[in-house]
Amino acid sequence: MELNDREECSGTTNDEDDNNNNSKHNFKVTPWEVEGEIDYNKLITQFGTQPITSEMIERIKHVTGEVHPMIKLRYFFSHRDLDWILNKHEEGESFYLYTGRGPSGMVHLGHVMPWMFTKYLQEKFNSKLLFQLTDDEKFLQTQDRSREDISYYTYENILDIIAVGFNADKTKIIVDTRDIQHLYPIATEIAKRITFSTAKAVFGFSNSTNIGMIGFPPIQSAPCFLPSIIENKPTPVLIPAAIDQDPYWRVTRDVAERMGYYKPAQIHSKFLPGLGMVGKMSSSKPDTALFTIDDPEIIDKKVSSAFTGGQATVTLQRQLGGNALGCPVFWYLRYLFDTEKQSDERLIKCKSGNLLCGECKGDLSKESQIFLVEFKKRRENARDVIAKFMFDGAPYEK
Amino acid sequence: MELNDREECSGTTNDEDDNNNNSKHNFKVTPWEVEGEIDYNKLITQFGTQPITSEMIERIKHVTGEVHPMIKLRYFFSHRDLDWILNKHEEGESFYLYTGRGPSGMVHLGHVMPWMFTKYLQEKFNSKLLFQLTDDEKFLQTQDRSREDISYYTYENILDIIAVGFNADKTKIIVDTRDIQHLYPIATEIAKRITFSTAKAVFGFSNSTNIGMIGFPPIQSAPCFLPSIIENKPTPVLIPAAIDQDPYWRVTRDVAERMGYYKPAQIHSKFLPGLGMVGKMSSSKPDTALFTIDDPEIIDKKVSSAFTGGQATVTLQRQLGGNALGCPVFWYLRYLFDTEKQSDERLIKCKSGNLLCGECKGDLSKESQIFLVEFKKRRENARDVIAKFMFDGAPYEK
Repeated sequence: MELNDREECSGTTNDEDDNNNNSKHNFKVTPWEVEGEIDYNKLITQFGTQPITSEMIERIKHVTGEVHPMIKLRYFFSHRDLDWILNKHEEGESFYLYTGRGPSGMVHLGHVMPWMFTKYLQEKFNSKLLFQLTDDEKFLQTQDRSREDISYYTYENILDIIAVGFNADKTKIIVDTRDIQHLYPIATEIAKRITFSTAKAVFGFSNSTNIGMIGFPPIQSAPCFLPSIIENKPTPVLIPAAIDQDPYWRVTRDVAERMGYYKPAQIHSKFLPGLGMVGKMSSSKPDTALFTIDDPEIIDKKVSSAFTGGQATVTLQRQLGGNALGCPVFWYLRYLFDTEKQSDERLIKCKSGNLLCGECKGDLSKESQIFLVEFKKRRENARDVIAKFMFDGAPYEK
Repeated sequence: MELNDREECSGTTNDEDDNNNNSKHNFKVTPWEVEGEIDYNKLITQFGTQPITSEMIERIKHVTGEVHPMIKLRYFFSHRDLDWILNKHEEGESFYLYTGRGPSGMVHLGHVMPWMFTKYLQEKFNSKLLFQLTDDEKFLQTQDRSREDISYYTYENILDIIAVGFNADKTKIIVDTRDIQHLYPIATEIAKRITFSTAKAVFGFSNSTNIGMIGFPPIQSAPCFLPSIIENKPTPVLIPAAIDQDPYWRVTRDVAERMGYYKPAQIHSKFLPGLGMVGKMSSSKPDTALFTIDDPEIIDKKVSSAFTGGQATVTLQRQLGGNALGCPVFWYLRYLFDTEKQSDERLIKCKSGNLLCGECKGDLSKESQIFLVEFKKRRENARDVIAKFMFDGAPYEK
């Protein structure tokens, strides 16, 4: 079942006309800020990306023999040139994956989800992966983060990345300040082709933006072209990442061909909702995020306190049914733990008043704890293999 | 004799009122552009620097026991905190020197002059020196320079730098793209403290400036603070450089104390005039510049064709005298080869019509050739010792 996840949020209904109800879509998405209730269809128009259509899903099925639930359920809902990447694959040309993380805090399930999908892509397409940690960006972004804090989070985040289970022979983690000598030459080539006008329009820079942030985007663009340098030939790249990072790839795509590279293709995810009333899961609202290092009792407590789409009382819930599509607990379960069949049944039972919030919360708490017990073990083991994953500018093992 | 070098340029006289003759001072000085006839006194006001006064010269004499001709003749004419640096020296606190070069072409005598003075300072104050080559800036600055060309000039320029005769145990050459891992962490700390507003005002950036150039200044600022990192304590730095680089040090000084460092002090040189009618010696006007790799016959040819302050005919010259202060040949000889006494005599003889241009050109050609024969030998020998001079992030030999 295809669900448009935010249409029923906050008690609004499908009957309302989008165009006459702007306040309903009062949202903001930039690489540094995600605010409000996001209308993902509007975002596709606004950013100029392509929706993942039923035809695209058929095409994926034709190429890979299956469709990953995160695509089927439209957690990955938008793309650029995904069809082109599939063509390249069918023509026998292998492509790199590239994704990243800004290490400004600990990792939560909202971060892990697209990484799990990236791991799936790596296995399915036998792809090499570059994973960038933008410690420089997180240092430049605000005046109050110390380099020591960012170094700490960088190390801790690397444990999470490795814990996802990427192929050690085909994955290299780049830390910007550590690996700047490999990024800088490409970044300057990109930077000289982007004017302040363009950067201002795409990223929303203003007179009060610091020049480090203005100069930063090419550092995030650089790994799009590193594969071509490593492989010594133009090499396709697919970027699985949340839609808020799209501005980076837009400017990168604009300069790619002039530099003799392919435009990077992308597949965009939605944000995993936080456990609060509105907004994505965020490290800056720790009570509404399930961190990978959270102890079971913390997970249980956070899930118990979660906002849901349920009615005020059990009686009302039985009588009126719940608003599953506006319920973060529902979406957590749907994206992460339920099968599609389970999730569709959960939706019907909730809407008809045959399911109480406590049951869903119980399922989410239990499943999260099971998931995180295993994840934490891999996370601990990761400490011993970090060196193997770190980028050193040298080609991958062939 | 103190001479105000540009007052008599282009046939204007001292009688004219500056304020009523703006066209006379139609000049532009930025780190990337030096145009027109420069009024150095106005530049001091415009940039907010301090003139090198007679009192300052007395102070220098008191500290060092002598006054270098380039200061006495006001080739170095302006400063920031030079008195503070002298205080530090007297208090027994040693300071670093830092200067640089943008490797966009071959080196000419206009470049070598401040480097010779820097070498003198190194000897006199027993200072360690950082010498930065901004290959990244020169790549970012225009679309038409290839990285290969810049690499070529970088290598060739390093030979010239070493040929100047800096102390190999106390001099480290930084090449930005080569040594970016040592510059980048400091550069991001600087960059986050400079807004686009400030950078726009100081450097003249506009909407059409590329974001690489906007992000670049902190890379040139970084070596101001490297000495404090190398020495593991706040360490004073004196920058001898042409006045056009002052905007960099202005923004650096603004952020220095907030970062826990001393403000870098500076001593600013004028530009060595080109051999043409107007403007500084420039690689972009090769016929008017004496390059260190020029053969003797080329030097002779360039000097023979030089613009001078002489009259149209020998008879007129004898009758009216020449305009020595508007004559690049005079200034070359004064700054580089004449003693002050010789130069003052040359001035008097020229103005009184007792000296013909051919004689001055003959002197300049001969002296340049003698200088460059020796320089070229040292330049060739430099090829074998490059490695010893290159920065590697490690502390200097103590």
